[in-house]
Amino acid sequence: MSLDGERRARVALSFLAQPGDLVLGAALRIMSPAGLLAAITGADEDGEAVLAAQMPDAALARALPRWRDRLTEVPSTARLAVWQQSGLRIIIPGDPEWPTQLDDLGDARPLLLWLRGSADLRLTCVSSVSMVGSRAATGYGNHVAIEMAAALADHGVGVISGGAFGIDASSHRGAMAAGGDTVAVLAGGLEFGYPHGHADLFAAIIGGGVVASECPPDRGPTRPGFLIRNRIIAALSRGTVVIEAALRSGALNSARHARELCRPVMAVPGPVTSEQSAGCHELIRDYGAMCVTCAADVLEQIGLPGDSAGILRLGPATPRDALDPVTMAVLEEVPARGGRGPASIAVRAGVDLDTALRCLGVLAAAGFVERSNLGWRAKRLASSRTA
Amino acid sequence: MSLDGERRARVALSFLAQPGDLVLGAALRIMSPAGLLAAITGADEDGEAVLAAQMPDAALARALPRWRDRLTEVPSTARLAVWQQSGLRIIIPGDPEWPTQLDDLGDARPLLLWLRGSADLRLTCVSSVSMVGSRAATGYGNHVAIEMAAALADHGVGVISGGAFGIDASSHRGAMAAGGDTVAVLAGGLEFGYPHGHADLFAAIIGGGVVASECPPDRGPTRPGFLIRNRIIAALSRGTVVIEAALRSGALNSARHARELCRPVMAVPGPVTSEQSAGCHELIRDYGAMCVTCAADVLEQIGLPGDSAGILRLGPATPRDALDPVTMAVLEEVPARGGRGPASIAVRAGVDLDTALRCLGVLAAAGFVERSNLGWRAKRLASSRTA
Repeated sequence: MSLDGERRARVALSFLAQPGDLVLGAALRIMSPAGLLAAITGADEDGEAVLAAQMPDAALARALPRWRDRLTEVPSTARLAVWQQSGLRIIIPGDPEWPTQLDDLGDARPLLLWLRGSADLRLTCVSSVSMVGSRAATGYGNHVAIEMAAALADHGVGVISGGAFGIDASSHRGAMAAGGDTVAVLAGGLEFGYPHGHADLFAAIIGGGVVASECPPDRGPTRPGFLIRNRIIAALSRGTVVIEAALRSGALNSARHARELCRPVMAVPGPVTSEQSAGCHELIRDYGAMCVTCAADVLEQIGLPGDSAGILRLGPATPRDALDPVTMAVLEEVPARGGRGPASIAVRAGVDLDTALRCLGVLAAAGFVERSNLGWRAKRLASSRTA
Repeated sequence: MSLDGERRARVALSFLAQPGDLVLGAALRIMSPAGLLAAITGADEDGEAVLAAQMPDAALARALPRWRDRLTEVPSTARLAVWQQSGLRIIIPGDPEWPTQLDDLGDARPLLLWLRGSADLRLTCVSSVSMVGSRAATGYGNHVAIEMAAALADHGVGVISGGAFGIDASSHRGAMAAGGDTVAVLAGGLEFGYPHGHADLFAAIIGGGVVASECPPDRGPTRPGFLIRNRIIAALSRGTVVIEAALRSGALNSARHARELCRPVMAVPGPVTSEQSAGCHELIRDYGAMCVTCAADVLEQIGLPGDSAGILRLGPATPRDALDPVTMAVLEEVPARGGRGPASIAVRAGVDLDTALRCLGVLAAAGFVERSNLGWRAKRLASSRTA
């Protein structure tokens, strides 16, 4: 593996620091990866002084000895060549295949990604959704994940997940069943290939998609490593859907990352009698996650249109010209964008406030209008929504 | 049945006009029930002139002949006496048993209510929840309705529903199973007793609760009558829970009434694969209904505390004093009431916006803070929440 200086330095640093090391990220704001590596190895004593001057907190002083202790783990060129021959490739920020949305992670941006697979990671993620959920998924959850992933793939949307048992696996499989691209971001190294029971799944994914990890290839996953990995799953896509999750499930951690990144967080409801849906209901109830029931809902949330060949899910129950004149007058004053308060609508429509509120209720129930943050607005008709 | 003048007039009017007749309601803003009756019968020609002068639209002119056509239906004193002997009683606005929250219905306020049962309607409804849903409920929906109604009854909350098959019946039965009071508001008259298959259910309800209707006792329900009746179910309680509802179900109409009355609208999620939960998901997704999974959620929404004997559902995952100093500083600036934007929190806590957002995410995930319409606020700790 012929590596330029920055790439070589990033590989070395990835063997010294843990994934998501925020002190390392902060240090890389001050100097280049090669410069930082020289400061760590002691090849550049001035470099260490520069760091110490610009990072005056104790974190750096604690981190440097930790990083130095691991210098023996930096792989030889020969070891890297073996991984290259097994089909691994490395991408770093600035590469054409680097998904620039990972830059939203700031200091927690991965140093690099190890990839295996025939797809281009960046292109696959341009229009993609992360689907996460419980390892101990129920038949219901697996069914929903497969159907949703397949429908998203049908619409050209990439499916990103974590390669775990349960919802992750069903999401990958659903996308592949529809001939779509899927990306598995593993918490351990790609040669370690955890969970081993998914060797066949990973082999299938790399046939048309990508398996990715920021970890050194032969490193196994650690317990905190799963949570740290979740930030990459959240950052790669336009939004994260939680299919099934018990309370305090790791999937909720993915949802938190997505929210911190200002990406839409969506949750699929399920039976309130199912512990595996309790986390989803909590997300909807307490954390403002959007309740999504099908791929069409997801496409709407991430701002991608469905196509007109899709199934009509819901149109107004009443045709517009069946409305009574007063209700029609109120509807005329509901704007298509933004929103307008009921009092303002009442004045413009020439009716009293009670009448306006009653008509707005009728119009909302019939699917013509909806509430927005700014008041009432006309609802986009659902003729092109898909199941 | 010895009736005073107003009571006698309201009974007569209830045989002339359909339930929820808004023209009648508007006329009763101008004159007393007895005065209106005299104007209709022709005993007071001046009365009709007063009405015509003060209600200058065509609605009154259309309504008067319709009401007059039905004068022959006004029951005799003897017929009323028979109903009285069968255990029916009449309440009208101003009676001690009249639930004053029905006045929120404005012109659509019922003229009167026929009641049968041993409970006091007003007392039963002071702290009550309406539970509505599909007639074609699934085993899941019936199970949830029974459990939720029983848990609400355990907390002294009255359960109001419509006496229909499915969710209505399960809600009534759940409340009674826990020894609680329940109110069935029927769309037809109490002697007609629709649906007939629920004769035993109604007999059980009147043992400890109330069966109520605004319709003349021997009148059968009409199709629009069910929708008109729903306003009473919504108005009697502090909030309406939809357990299961297909898209365009009548239960959604109850939810709309509740929203128009500014009462909380709640919906229980279910499998996205179930048509009987599609209406609930639509309420949550598109109409801002609160996602509720248990009686504790419902109590929280209607502003009633659970009791400390209940099951702790969720507390912060992290103890407060395990928070790092920066996160603690951010938490200190999150107000307990109202809300504060992240930028303002950042300035007060002396951190940058990114840090504030990250800390708020951590605090939200740990259950310390939540988003409100006004920004972030501290979350009431869940030590007394019940399942």
